[in-house]
Amino acid sequence: MNALLTDLYQLTMAAGYFEAGKHHEVATFELFVRRLPYNRNYYLTAGLPQAIEYLRNLRFEPEEIAWLRALPQFSRVSPEFFTYLADLRFSGDVFGIPEGTPVFPNEPILTVRAPLIEAQLVETYLLATIGFQTLIASKAARIVEAAGAASVVEFGTRRAHGPESGLLAARAAYIGGCIGTSNVEAGFRFGVPVYGTSAHSWVMSFSSELDSFRHLQQLLGEGTTYLIDSYDTLEGARKAISLGRPIAGVRLDSGNLFELSRAVRALLDAAGFHDVTIMATSDLNEYRIVELTAAAAPIAIYGVGTDLATSADSPSLGAVYKLVELESNSAKRYTAKYSEEKHTRPGAKQVFRYGNRDLVSCAWEALPTDAPAEALLRPVMSQGQLLEPLPDAHQARATARENIKKLPHALKSLYAPEEHPWRVEYSKELLALDARVRQNLRGDNQ
Amino acid sequence: MNALLTDLYQLTMAAGYFEAGKHHEVATFELFVRRLPYNRNYYLTAGLPQAIEYLRNLRFEPEEIAWLRALPQFSRVSPEFFTYLADLRFSGDVFGIPEGTPVFPNEPILTVRAPLIEAQLVETYLLATIGFQTLIASKAARIVEAAGAASVVEFGTRRAHGPESGLLAARAAYIGGCIGTSNVEAGFRFGVPVYGTSAHSWVMSFSSELDSFRHLQQLLGEGTTYLIDSYDTLEGARKAISLGRPIAGVRLDSGNLFELSRAVRALLDAAGFHDVTIMATSDLNEYRIVELTAAAAPIAIYGVGTDLATSADSPSLGAVYKLVELESNSAKRYTAKYSEEKHTRPGAKQVFRYGNRDLVSCAWEALPTDAPAEALLRPVMSQGQLLEPLPDAHQARATARENIKKLPHALKSLYAPEEHPWRVEYSKELLALDARVRQNLRGDNQ
Repeated sequence: MNALLTDLYQLTMAAGYFEAGKHHEVATFELFVRRLPYNRNYYLTAGLPQAIEYLRNLRFEPEEIAWLRALPQFSRVSPEFFTYLADLRFSGDVFGIPEGTPVFPNEPILTVRAPLIEAQLVETYLLATIGFQTLIASKAARIVEAAGAASVVEFGTRRAHGPESGLLAARAAYIGGCIGTSNVEAGFRFGVPVYGTSAHSWVMSFSSELDSFRHLQQLLGEGTTYLIDSYDTLEGARKAISLGRPIAGVRLDSGNLFELSRAVRALLDAAGFHDVTIMATSDLNEYRIVELTAAAAPIAIYGVGTDLATSADSPSLGAVYKLVELESNSAKRYTAKYSEEKHTRPGAKQVFRYGNRDLVSCAWEALPTDAPAEALLRPVMSQGQLLEPLPDAHQARATARENIKKLPHALKSLYAPEEHPWRVEYSKELLALDARVRQNLRGDNQ
Repeated sequence: MNALLTDLYQLTMAAGYFEAGKHHEVATFELFVRRLPYNRNYYLTAGLPQAIEYLRNLRFEPEEIAWLRALPQFSRVSPEFFTYLADLRFSGDVFGIPEGTPVFPNEPILTVRAPLIEAQLVETYLLATIGFQTLIASKAARIVEAAGAASVVEFGTRRAHGPESGLLAARAAYIGGCIGTSNVEAGFRFGVPVYGTSAHSWVMSFSSELDSFRHLQQLLGEGTTYLIDSYDTLEGARKAISLGRPIAGVRLDSGNLFELSRAVRALLDAAGFHDVTIMATSDLNEYRIVELTAAAAPIAIYGVGTDLATSADSPSLGAVYKLVELESNSAKRYTAKYSEEKHTRPGAKQVFRYGNRDLVSCAWEALPTDAPAEALLRPVMSQGQLLEPLPDAHQARATARENIKKLPHALKSLYAPEEHPWRVEYSKELLALDARVRQNLRGDNQ
């Protein structure tokens, strides 16, 4: 299932490794982000359970293998390779940083150690699923920060990059601090709280706005939130008030949200509806919300769609997955790439987090004793088996909230600080290994 | 399957329509884009088959219904509604503009006429799947245009917004003019040609670059494309040449692509390898590619990943789905939204295309006789049944190529022209209907 959801070169390389007798070698790959995206000061990990689910279900169906065999790229490949593919299951070890952890460039967030072919094949899917959820969790954290005391709900499925993308965005946005989502499947499948009451089509489907409000109130009772901007927002507010209790809130979806929210608040307060909340939607993002927060707009809930579900100001993360070790016949090689602008460091790593800085070390180095530190990469799978159930979306969200609370204030800005206040250092042992590998490669390739 | 992949308010409204006895009413909704996104002069339709597949498979599973019933939002809803949901299948009519058609704002690209609840529920999924593929097909067309005589391959799955997004992007990019994709599933499922040979991890997994090249050549024969920038690009090119034929090409993935492509071309030509092609990858997009094309860089194939699969400079389309008609007991109402900045026009429509302009009319108006025109919206489903198989991705790509060829040159610019050369006009009948509906609504809502 989903085994073909990968890049073709993963499969041609797999065939090549097999033909070269390298499929018994054991590879270690690390997944990390090279640079912080535009206006981001940290990113928030998400997507680990979906990555693990994929690894646990990885298998090629007979009709998929038959289709591959017929490709010209595989015309020289021996039949044994396709038998190998048919039997292939993920049998490796996986280490991951728990969901909801703020991380920085060049820190591995997932380590895969597995037979070379298995470890190679899974690159594309792992990058897509972890990269995307991490992108959205990071975006959500910014929006939630900008909203201050107000809450944020994710409303973006319709503008997400396909239906599954909407589902994953809903989950990741919840981890990043949203109180919930409009995506019902995310509620059903991941337990994310679901929000939403009515659209303009509801209002338009009745012969008058007031009639549509009356029916909504009958349906939803104390959960009723009226969408009041279909014709005239203040008139809409008056009609909502005229129906009396029960009422939970009103939603504004167009116009000047600052002025309208104040005018509607005044109408609600004058009617004694101090507890009735105002929700705002309409092309929102962290930049617009922070202005409304700064101006003390009386908005209790922001519904954010397109810009959240697509991380519109920075729609990709640039995650990569790089070979760092290769073991064959009890010999181990450390690998790295030293081409012009794309430098990676060799060897499996660990990330130790101190209160306000990180140390990236070789995986075998002991926990530092110079100060309290935490090892961020934790064992997740061993020999293809999940070690223990992963935290669910609620737990990941709680982890994120705790972690973000501890971050220096400058990192929570919507803009990059002059000087990034979080130091990421490399251990002496890792730097020495790096120098050694670089020296050896120079020798080999002159 | 996928019935819960919708916004909660679609389901609360469905319950409300049911309780109000409105589920026998028949609604017509139109899907369209309000404005052209940043730097886009037209967009290219894609995603219709996935939308139709969703409609044909729409159904609620018993455990989904049980979960919904337990939500507080449905506590007041009668049991009959859930029986209705359990039996619900899509039974409506659908009209769509074929994939690969250039279209403009406010032109409906999909019309759904169905019992109100069915038509409402499907909004979210339809927007996500058609909106996304249309976004990517449009982006691909720009990149293909920028590449001139060179070919473009889609390589973006790893940076797409989740794995399914990568699959749909591959399909849409092919329709938009790419020659293929790296996404194997897109080859298996949609017949998109697949491309790709090896990555840096391949080179690094062997003890030397030359050794890795040798094994690649054995594997791929005349299909061999070497990735030559792992250590030093020109050295890599020399090693590739030293292995002689068979060889198809070399790939550059870092550095100054203009200078490196010229230097590598010179080495290849000096060795008599005039037919060996250079492929370039590395954070490409239409803006960088048009510079390389203008400078006559000797690059035959561009592999474009992140920026294509995420439409990075304009990562959302802003498609909407609006109620335009509602029929009950043989009375028909035309509906529209006239709130401040979001104006829609009432009534089911047709789009007539003349050589260089469009006329948006009421659906019942006859084909104009003043000049040759084509009706863009075609019947696709009738009473829940597909009328005839839809064109596949190959046919849609051919349609797109023909259509783009006919577009005025100014529309193919990477930037918006001063004056948009394609006129979209509204028929007199549509404008009169619009005025009438607006007048009536004013009356109802004073």
